[in-house]
Amino acid sequence: MKENKIEPRTLTGFMELLPENQILFNQMVDKIRKSYEEFGFLPLDTPVIELAEVLLAKAGGETEKQIYRFNKGENDLALRFDLTVPLAKYVAINYNDLAFPFRRYQIGKVYRGERPQKGRFREFYQCDIDIIGDNELNLLNDAEIPNVIYNTFKRLELGDFTICINNRKILNGLFKSLNLEEISVDVMRIIDKIEKIGKEQVVQELLKLGVTSRTAEKIIEFIQIDGTTDEKIQALEQMNITDELYITGVNELKEVIKNIRLFGIPDQNFKIDLTIARGLDYYTGTVYETFLNEYKQLGSVCSGGRYDNLAEFYTDKKLPGVGISIGLSRLFYQLSELNAFNQKEKSIAKVLVVAMDDNEEQQTMSKAIEVATLLRNNGISTQIYTENKKIKAKFKYADKLKIPYVAVIGENEVNNNKITLKNMSTGEQEEIEINNEALKKYFE
Amino acid sequence: MKENKIEPRTLTGFMELLPENQILFNQMVDKIRKSYEEFGFLPLDTPVIELAEVLLAKAGGETEKQIYRFNKGENDLALRFDLTVPLAKYVAINYNDLAFPFRRYQIGKVYRGERPQKGRFREFYQCDIDIIGDNELNLLNDAEIPNVIYNTFKRLELGDFTICINNRKILNGLFKSLNLEEISVDVMRIIDKIEKIGKEQVVQELLKLGVTSRTAEKIIEFIQIDGTTDEKIQALEQMNITDELYITGVNELKEVIKNIRLFGIPDQNFKIDLTIARGLDYYTGTVYETFLNEYKQLGSVCSGGRYDNLAEFYTDKKLPGVGISIGLSRLFYQLSELNAFNQKEKSIAKVLVVAMDDNEEQQTMSKAIEVATLLRNNGISTQIYTENKKIKAKFKYADKLKIPYVAVIGENEVNNNKITLKNMSTGEQEEIEINNEALKKYFE
Repeated sequence: MKENKIEPRTLTGFMELLPENQILFNQMVDKIRKSYEEFGFLPLDTPVIELAEVLLAKAGGETEKQIYRFNKGENDLALRFDLTVPLAKYVAINYNDLAFPFRRYQIGKVYRGERPQKGRFREFYQCDIDIIGDNELNLLNDAEIPNVIYNTFKRLELGDFTICINNRKILNGLFKSLNLEEISVDVMRIIDKIEKIGKEQVVQELLKLGVTSRTAEKIIEFIQIDGTTDEKIQALEQMNITDELYITGVNELKEVIKNIRLFGIPDQNFKIDLTIARGLDYYTGTVYETFLNEYKQLGSVCSGGRYDNLAEFYTDKKLPGVGISIGLSRLFYQLSELNAFNQKEKSIAKVLVVAMDDNEEQQTMSKAIEVATLLRNNGISTQIYTENKKIKAKFKYADKLKIPYVAVIGENEVNNNKITLKNMSTGEQEEIEINNEALKKYFE
Repeated sequence: MKENKIEPRTLTGFMELLPENQILFNQMVDKIRKSYEEFGFLPLDTPVIELAEVLLAKAGGETEKQIYRFNKGENDLALRFDLTVPLAKYVAINYNDLAFPFRRYQIGKVYRGERPQKGRFREFYQCDIDIIGDNELNLLNDAEIPNVIYNTFKRLELGDFTICINNRKILNGLFKSLNLEEISVDVMRIIDKIEKIGKEQVVQELLKLGVTSRTAEKIIEFIQIDGTTDEKIQALEQMNITDELYITGVNELKEVIKNIRLFGIPDQNFKIDLTIARGLDYYTGTVYETFLNEYKQLGSVCSGGRYDNLAEFYTDKKLPGVGISIGLSRLFYQLSELNAFNQKEKSIAKVLVVAMDDNEEQQTMSKAIEVATLLRNNGISTQIYTENKKIKAKFKYADKLKIPYVAVIGENEVNNNKITLKNMSTGEQEEIEINNEALKKYFE
């Protein structure tokens, strides 16, 4: 048997971190969760496995190809590929038990069998919030979502960031007024490239698509709207477009911007970006993207928007909503690659308690346990070093685990009821009495 | 399209909770995590999907039948059925990057396609800790594990509990000395029934198995050892068994008990139970089971033990370890059924801020946002009620979500820079000035 070892390995595209990075990853999850809960979002935890029929009610194309799907017994099953479809299912099932607006967050793994590539994962965390209304949902919610984004990214301490806001009705109304509805996807695709290929090239591609030069001009006029937030709104109002959808979109955007300011988000942290459409075709109003100013190359790190109907594939109830998602695994991976973290706490244990000599010495170990328990009772995570090694090996262990303090206990310490605390980063040592007050004071 | 709705439903055997219960479930997870981290265990998060070959290196029998296994592309994949095999894989892969003893916790979902029945889930949470040594692992760790169990169940506040301890070497040595090694599984099965079928019946069944009456007597003598912890150890020592394994087992148990006391666990919270074997055949030393005194019918709620070799199917390195697992989904379900929870916080938001009148009134909403932000900055989760409803509906919402406080803001409040805070459980109302000090004082 011993000769026939199985090669231990983890699947490509599946993130599995060393403890130090896992601690950091968890710190991000905790901060996101804290931000979401601060705004009263309720936790949700839906199964990873669902009936394929239920999960794929709406899907198609790429999603369906990427899905993990299999049979177990008589069931055709699939792994969730996002947290929105399970939310739709959940709200449809539990409609009568929920209070609306239903505000939920879910932080969990989702699965997409993509071709693995750098920074793309087949199993990855999404951190979602959504606010679901029963039949209607006040536009005020569209302004509160940026407040949640703002608090979340402030807490994540990843430097300055910009929340970009748009309203799908503006784009849709513009296309309607220009009779471009049928080719809107192609037009959007071309518009999206303006920063890469420049204005002239965009016009050329639009003409190739059969768009008149007058219409192309109007499109260029629109996507070149620039200036302050208020100047942009003014320019939108002066576009001379009478399409009702367009006008509604501009008014909604104006209202959302007004309320975003009411929510106290500084002007430097948000802006109108009229080119944001969000690929998904179910966004119908406000849309968001978030960029880290120092790491713009990452693209949007937190996106979402307003949709008219969350669960139309399951129920006749009209359930409008607004939400966002952070693709955490990818963000974490990219930030790691960029060395963007300024991690303070790199260990779980704050103190490693070590015996100066032999662990088997009952008095020493008894004192070590007493100290560890006292520290834990004061909320300080503490590990006792349990093995019979030389003191040097014990310190090396603390070093490798980046535990910031080592408490040494020897004969002297036992006799004087003291510990010698060593700060591992400064090297400073201090003798501390073993009691609540002295320990609390030291770790303050 | 609208007519062809898909029936939204969740798979049988998959737990999906309403928000109020999810909050409670998460509180339990948080307490377990906090306890594990308090002892310096490092977090780990391995993929839910693994290569079937890797995951099933050791499995067989029931496990293999229950597994969720499927192909994706060219890969033969499976969902993890516990957190121990992924740990073994992880330690084998990352051996050179880990510091030993390697102490990790993992809280995550595992999958077993069992026949669903009340309280049995196909997707369920396990909350594991393990301490892995490199070639050797001090017996002191076997005594620290009950300390972690003790702290965890104290924090969970599920009433009194008893940690039952045994050592597999004692049973194995006993069987060896009685020449019962080849039928030890059958003997164990019979012994296990003593509380149900009584001593006479056990003897009868042992004789039927071909055991001599002298040997049966010795077995009965052994399993009837009773008394205090110290009396049990004394009786074990006086069994007149000279088998080396047996003697080692008794000595280990004695040492573990001595150290458990050193760790400060009260005698009422642990006991020796010589009948505990734990089904899994890889436990080789200390074994644990934990019972809630008020809910003994649940069986063991936290079990584990010492094993000689964590990862022998992947590596030649000898990796002894000791660990425990809490099957949280099942425990949660059973405790819910028994109404065993005494939940204090049933909501995420502590305060619901509502406008007395129309939300559209900018001054009122501006004040509501100001108050909500102030509360959040003081660490109080706060939700603003965003919809244009009558004040009565707003209070009903707070009630349904069990939010403990409602902050009302009307014209008066705006003018006087005050809020009216209503305690939803007592009905008491109080006018509070809108500033940090007044709010802090109120929520202290």
